[in-house]
Amino acid sequence: MFLLRSLRIGIFSTAFYRLLEISNGMSGLKPPLIIVNFKTYMESTGRRAVELARKCEKVSRELGVNVAVAPQAVDLARVASEVSIPVLAQHVDPYTPGAHTGSILIEAIKEAGAVGTLVNHSEKRLRADEIDEIVKRASSLGLEVVICANTPEVAASLSAFNPAFIAIEPPELIGTGKAVSKAKPEVITDTINLIRRVNPKVVVICGAGITNGFDVEAAIKLGTEGVLVASGVVKARDQEAAVRDLAEGLLRALKS
Amino acid sequence: MFLLRSLRIGIFSTAFYRLLEISNGMSGLKPPLIIVNFKTYMESTGRRAVELARKCEKVSRELGVNVAVAPQAVDLARVASEVSIPVLAQHVDPYTPGAHTGSILIEAIKEAGAVGTLVNHSEKRLRADEIDEIVKRASSLGLEVVICANTPEVAASLSAFNPAFIAIEPPELIGTGKAVSKAKPEVITDTINLIRRVNPKVVVICGAGITNGFDVEAAIKLGTEGVLVASGVVKARDQEAAVRDLAEGLLRALKS
Amino acid sequence: MFLLRSLRIGIFSTAFYRLLEISNGMSGLKPPLIIVNFKTYMESTGRRAVELARKCEKVSRELGVNVAVAPQAVDLARVASEVSIPVLAQHVDPYTPGAHTGSILIEAIKEAGAVGTLVNHSEKRLRADEIDEIVKRASSLGLEVVICANTPEVAASLSAFNPAFIAIEPPELIGTGKAVSKAKPEVITDTINLIRRVNPKVVVICGAGITNGFDVEAAIKLGTEGVLVASGVVKARDQEAAVRDLAEGLLRALKS
Amino acid sequence: MFLLRSLRIGIFSTAFYRLLEISNGMSGLKPPLIIVNFKTYMESTGRRAVELARKCEKVSRELGVNVAVAPQAVDLARVASEVSIPVLAQHVDPYTPGAHTGSILIEAIKEAGAVGTLVNHSEKRLRADEIDEIVKRASSLGLEVVICANTPEVAASLSAFNPAFIAIEPPELIGTGKAVSKAKPEVITDTINLIRRVNPKVVVICGAGITNGFDVEAAIKLGTEGVLVASGVVKARDQEAAVRDLAEGLLRALKS
Repeated sequence: MFLLRSLRIGIFSTAFYRLLEISNGMSGLKPPLIIVNFKTYMESTGRRAVELARKCEKVSRELGVNVAVAPQAVDLARVASEVSIPVLAQHVDPYTPGAHTGSILIEAIKEAGAVGTLVNHSEKRLRADEIDEIVKRASSLGLEVVICANTPEVAASLSAFNPAFIAIEPPELIGTGKAVSKAKPEVITDTINLIRRVNPKVVVICGAGITNGFDVEAAIKLGTEGVLVASGVVKARDQEAAVRDLAEGLLRALKS
Repeated sequence: MFLLRSLRIGIFSTAFYRLLEISNGMSGLKPPLIIVNFKTYMESTGRRAVELARKCEKVSRELGVNVAVAPQAVDLARVASEVSIPVLAQHVDPYTPGAHTGSILIEAIKEAGAVGTLVNHSEKRLRADEIDEIVKRASSLGLEVVICANTPEVAASLSAFNPAFIAIEPPELIGTGKAVSKAKPEVITDTINLIRRVNPKVVVICGAGITNGFDVEAAIKLGTEGVLVASGVVKARDQEAAVRDLAEGLLRALKS
Repeated sequence: MFLLRSLRIGIFSTAFYRLLEISNGMSGLKPPLIIVNFKTYMESTGRRAVELARKCEKVSRELGVNVAVAPQAVDLARVASEVSIPVLAQHVDPYTPGAHTGSILIEAIKEAGAVGTLVNHSEKRLRADEIDEIVKRASSLGLEVVICANTPEVAASLSAFNPAFIAIEPPELIGTGKAVSKAKPEVITDTINLIRRVNPKVVVICGAGITNGFDVEAAIKLGTEGVLVASGVVKARDQEAAVRDLAEGLLRALKS
Repeated sequence: MFLLRSLRIGIFSTAFYRLLEISNGMSGLKPPLIIVNFKTYMESTGRRAVELARKCEKVSRELGVNVAVAPQAVDLARVASEVSIPVLAQHVDPYTPGAHTGSILIEAIKEAGAVGTLVNHSEKRLRADEIDEIVKRASSLGLEVVICANTPEVAASLSAFNPAFIAIEPPELIGTGKAVSKAKPEVITDTINLIRRVNPKVVVICGAGITNGFDVEAAIKLGTEGVLVASGVVKARDQEAAVRDLAEGLLRALKS
């Protein structure tokens, strides 16, 4: 299977095959995809979180591209009730229900309508044992986990926890508008190579500096199956146009 | 004024005078009050968070006692939209809007309908500089802050930040059912004495082990103006009866 | 006494009177003083930590100015055994002896020869409850605590824990060479004013950007009783000359 | 080589072959070995740290068994200067030299005479990205890293960072006197199996509850190449006898 997968990459992108799979009607978080991380920008808080999620949903439907959104915990339930695209939490804590004032409970995000969660983002890094616990608990509840990693080595290490997705994001490029897929393509290819030795089942996406369709196209051609984007969409003058541009880049890459 | 206040305590409780003040129609978080911390118990998550908040609201209306609720961040918006009693966050992060994936933004809890937030709970302790930042930011947004403290010295220290409320909670009693107001009354009186030297304007409430009206009565008689309660209500077989019992204890103390 | 103290400031500096007091032969950490924080620079690690401490000791003896040094934990014992000026730890953990792998035990720094410790430096901030615990434990062991604070409000808050010293250091000036005593004098005066309302016994020193004697002179004239300096000495081409310059500035201020 | 290794285990223990290798005079941290973690017990602080290290050295020489010691940072230099057995730090921070007040610098422990460090102990857990950075920096300085892990999955994940050693320690057994090698042998075998899939070069040792030679014997027979022990030695009435008993257990296991 590992061999087959390698062969496939030679002819079409892995992402292309994934796209075929999802046409079978599977729900949840499926590659190739674009994940829009709302962070804690005012442009994606409260009422504006719902508006941005609707724009993402519109583009997703019109272009047939998977777009998922990750609003703040406070906005999660409302966003999930207003759109039908997959909604992720930005973070959860590694706790079972109980006395954990101020924490984000995995059961709570599930009841709020999330299909999964980002974890270990460069702005909310976790200990290795916490990630282990979160992946185990999320899996038992049927939720998917997207683990962020700052280096190829961390990505490979965390892929051993068998999450659905690993997102490689060099922190020095986050928010810069300099796309990882162009500025540091070797980080992406190193990540894919290292992860495949540890856990070939993990889907690799990338983030940091992604702002337009060309960045997405480059990311897919390097072997990823999607992107994680934040300010490139949230802070765009025209958020809907920004998402559309990314989605068109994804489609171009899949067809080429 | 400090002297006057001391005199008042000799005759009636401070809390009694506060009750008179709120009859003037002031909104928000007013002493004397009962704050129910929902923590991350399953009995107070999602749909059940809304149900518990409604029970608290019912008791508050029927008995004319201030009851505030502190649901998880994920449930905050929904709870706030369903009840008219004050809703607090359990925690916020000390950040301005921006790139803070996974954090709880003060602006977000405000838009969700919270009137303020707990901070520095024993289960989510913060650095001194973070508390300073949170109190400054919350104040500028018109939100009230209830700072939790584990010892009289920490309470006195944190009262210098001029929050609306300080909640003294010896962590070793939290969740035990052994009420601080009975098991460690000296912790409460020490706290009140130390805080008054630093900042006499701060309202002092107490928590840890509070489960029934007698515990509340004892707390008020010791000079506090309310209680912070969690498992005593959330894990009660009859949550509404538990809140009612606490509220009746508060009323007894104010009338005596 | 508070009044007297205020009067004194009008005529001579408080620091001048402190200098008289120490001539009585009291040991330990006495104002007015210069604390050199070695941080984790290579220029102040290992063998070079001992050399730098000796330079500080030499200047202290020759000019009769109190200079204390704060080397890394790893270098603490060796530095303390080689010099007779006061040696501080840079940080300690809030634990009693026991199972705390990787922590800095207060008993260990005492046995190593430290007279006290810095805590809550901007590069190693602590929770309020941890600072409470550390001050209590250090006091019971006869060690002195210098609590660092990033704002006047944090300084006032932490002065309630009754440490020997509070060091106000605006983090945005640390390592810049722009001295707090010149770039932000109001931060120093606000700190002194706020602390005096909470705990007039605490000695206030300041840090951040201090690099020469004029910076020290300005700091003393603003009402502080010493400075906390790091890169200004450690990274100086001539470390001994840098300490001497600071000490001469202190003497000028005390005599004026 | 992987196959060969598996075969070897069938006949003799891997540890036995390692023992042959070290007879060639290689220095540093070599399996099979016993690592004594001094934690922050009073019985292993300051002067008593040196005494305990000497006892470990004596047993090591007399029985020809590798024993390494991990004293507190404050005691590291003195212990390393007094004994010739390998000395480890209990923890280091992931920083390059610079402005990191209160941190443990890798360069500092090296100059103090350490041959490496424990990291990520259950009492000092680290983020995945921090462990990545520490292993990279330590390697570049010629220091060895023993990464502690609380579960087989965490152990496998962290083995991807290619440390010299992984120590599996179920935290619920630490300090109990119930040895992991007897109470939870499946944790050890699961760990070895999972790690071998990710990185077969890593040496696996185990800890938690190890108190006597039989515990060590069981650990070696399960396929580990050493143990990590703390209270079992440090808190023993006769520390030297305790180390000797462990060392004899190791020898029995290697000969059987």
